Amino acid sequence: MFKEEIKVIDCTVRDGGLMNQWQFSEKFVRNVYNALADAGVDYMEIGYLSSQDAFDAKKFGPWKFCQERDLKKIVGDGEKKIKLSAMADIGRIEERDIPAANDSSLDMIRIACYVHQVDSAIALAHHCQEKGYETTINLMAVSTVGLRELNECLEDLNKSKVPVIYLVDSFGAFYSEDIDTLAQKYMERLPGKIIGAHFHNNQQLAFANTISAIINGVNYLDATLYGIGRGAGNCPLELLLSFLKNPKFRVRPIIQCIEEEIFPWSKKIDWGYSIPYMVTGTMNQHPRTAMAVMESDNKDNILEYYDTICNVVGSV
Amino acid sequence: MFKEEIKVIDCTVRDGGLMNQWQFSEKFVRNVYNALADAGVDYMEIGYLSSQDAFDAKKFGPWKFCQERDLKKIVGDGEKKIKLSAMADIGRIEERDIPAANDSSLDMIRIACYVHQVDSAIALAHHCQEKGYETTINLMAVSTVGLRELNECLEDLNKSKVPVIYLVDSFGAFYSEDIDTLAQKYMERLPGKIIGAHFHNNQQLAFANTISAIINGVNYLDATLYGIGRGAGNCPLELLLSFLKNPKFRVRPIIQCIEEEIFPWSKKIDWGYSIPYMVTGTMNQHPRTAMAVMESDNKDNILEYYDTICNVVGSV
Repeated sequence: MFKEEIKVIDCTVRDGGLMNQWQFSEKFVRNVYNALADAGVDYMEIGYLSSQDAFDAKKFGPWKFCQERDLKKIVGDGEKKIKLSAMADIGRIEERDIPAANDSSLDMIRIACYVHQVDSAIALAHHCQEKGYETTINLMAVSTVGLRELNECLEDLNKSKVPVIYLVDSFGAFYSEDIDTLAQKYMERLPGKIIGAHFHNNQQLAFANTISAIINGVNYLDATLYGIGRGAGNCPLELLLSFLKNPKFRVRPIIQCIEEEIFPWSKKIDWGYSIPYMVTGTMNQHPRTAMAVMESDNKDNILEYYDTICNVVGSV
Repeated sequence: MFKEEIKVIDCTVRDGGLMNQWQFSEKFVRNVYNALADAGVDYMEIGYLSSQDAFDAKKFGPWKFCQERDLKKIVGDGEKKIKLSAMADIGRIEERDIPAANDSSLDMIRIACYVHQVDSAIALAHHCQEKGYETTINLMAVSTVGLRELNECLEDLNKSKVPVIYLVDSFGAFYSEDIDTLAQKYMERLPGKIIGAHFHNNQQLAFANTISAIINGVNYLDATLYGIGRGAGNCPLELLLSFLKNPKFRVRPIIQCIEEEIFPWSKKIDWGYSIPYMVTGTMNQHPRTAMAVMESDNKDNILEYYDTICNVVGSV
């Protein structure tokens, strides 16, 4: 009843950190680490890998940088309980700042890029592979990419040595039929590679679209505790693990961790379905304008927001 | 690009009323009525049709009963702007209390029943048809019905004169593959009848499953403003209208009505995705235990709730 090939990647700290500048406490990150290990999750994405001079370290918590000394505080000196991943954005990490995998607690580096950055992403991924890491390339915002450009990009990725390529719905704009179409395209154009899925919840479809991806043969699945993440958030891990039939997964540690660590944050920061995020999702736009209104005193003025967005879109 | 046959039924007042004993003000119901009409929605389900002696009228608002004098306060004396529907539960309405359609503002009566009540439901639906109403039968909790029983029930429904039969996911337990399987079964076993869909959002799948239903030929689609409804709520109307390509639908009046009428209620009553509702959904249970915990001071103790439910389920 289950597919052994399926791997679940929890992005709670990395994607959730977009909502609080990665100001998660050590206790929070350690509890998430232990809960994910107990739940049988395959990877924990613990943050971004960024060069120290790319960002002001005073503004951001340690999980924006994933320095080895901070990782060690979580995993201790013994054997790790779960594989760790970090995400790298093109242009925000220097190759020289990436330690050899042997000197790092990280197992996997995932390169996030837009379609025009794919050559840089492949080069960085190859560099990480040479240093001993598992790698993926997460091609963002594909809902805005033209067909010719996407085909070319997939051709480049196909020629690369990167073994895992992600289908990413950055704007929460896709319906299940889009996932069917794109997952099939990725499978056809990237023979022999593993396809991953990372979806946002602007239209309450992140979990449903992840199921569609699984049905289409996608095997790397991203989720977060209680859906925490930027804007409308992500596919909720508790729903995904309940759906998957692999007996190695356990939901109970996830429920416990949500109660102990996520509920307190849910009272301080706002993620999840709301009308402004729904509007950017249906309009296939970056959620930045919705995030701005959700962080303002104006967040309940949804008609005004809707009219602004419609007028902007309509004026092209 | 759109299917003319698709009809959208808004259940905001009827299903949302399960959360507040139908204590919606006249202003609320009138604003919903006008918004739905402006949005091009086909039917407004304005409440339950119940006999006065079945419930204590002091405990419940008027939309528990749908008396003609209350309906008139909303629709006035001119032409109605949108068709009205009311739901009838088996055993809670006497035939003698149902006026002739000519004397009523209601256009449609939808009979909700469990599988063992299907004969009574058919009899009541036929009675309503004779009085001049459109009718549907909404077969509830089908996720708990055995295959033989379901087949027999569909055979009875097939022989009836009731033109619309609903596939209902009362517990929010279905995945899209269940919708594929059941919608196809309903279509095959009920040739010539229209199939409807009413789904709950325990697993954030109400909208996604409605899309699956549309793909499978289901044409009557239930939704509510901002998903308001019992427990985890329903398919959000704003998402459904954004998805449907029929140009007669307009989202803007829905956004305005959510801001003006639904947001104030969202601060007073709790509906939508939460862990207790997710747990009953994944366990295919009635949400009553989850509703009890969500209404108690214990609602954040989700691990305790999860353990209780798992132990109960495990002890069979």
